Amino acid sequence: MSKSLPDPAGDAGLACCVPLAREPISAESAAGVAPMLKAVADPTRLRLLSLVLSHEGSEACVCDLLPYFDLSQPTISHHLKVLHEAGLLDREKRGTWVFYLARPEAMAALGSLFALSSSASTAALAGASA
Amino acid sequence: MSKSLPDPAGDAGLACCVPLAREPISAESAAGVAPMLKAVADPTRLRLLSLVLSHEGSEACVCDLLPYFDLSQPTISHHLKVLHEAGLLDREKRGTWVFYLARPEAMAALGSLFALSSSASTAALAGASA
Repeated sequence: MSKSLPDPAGDAGLACCVPLAREPISAESAAGVAPMLKAVADPTRLRLLSLVLSHEGSEACVCDLLPYFDLSQPTISHHLKVLHEAGLLDREKRGTWVFYLARPEAMAALGSLFALSSSASTAALAGASA
Repeated sequence: MSKSLPDPAGDAGLACCVPLAREPISAESAAGVAPMLKAVADPTRLRLLSLVLSHEGSEACVCDLLPYFDLSQPTISHHLKVLHEAGLLDREKRGTWVFYLARPEAMAALGSLFALSSSASTAALAGASA
């Protein structure tokens, strides 16, 4: 039986989904999404996020992740907590282990942020052929 | 007449394009892309990037961007330099102004990083309906 842990403080970052290239992002949206980007702007956390996402069922516990790093369990747990608090991973307590689960909506939000609008692509192609 | 300024130090981040959810990102690729993410993990730089990308021709000079901020020109110039050095914007000197230009390949690299693989999406949907 699993028990969901409290949700991260806010999902402000998920309101970010308009591509940066479509229209200028508001100061409010930028402030909302920056913490998500800050959480992934670290090589260890980027690897942890990728390991969870590509793991079976898109979920993993610290026990699954530890072998991939030359780091202590508390350090790995700390990085996972940062990813959770930024809204990038959900977590669930199962027995003695905490499992971390992918949040596809967070990935979709970040993915769409960097999507190119057709006008930007056209301008870029024009520039490349000039 | 425009003069291209030197390219940023490295394009290591552009080698990152495999989605995090498809397979575990290597330590090398994670170290390569983290500086790009760090550069955009700041609300002011996120807004600057969005303003350049959504500006006419996907390019802008500091003179175009200054009115949007309650910040000094040197501060804005510093943030633009950080985005340039991380490989997110190109720059070109035209007369007395430096223009910053979108780098669609950098946006595409970041966008694909957060793309969901079909297996992750399926697992997420299964979880959502459970």
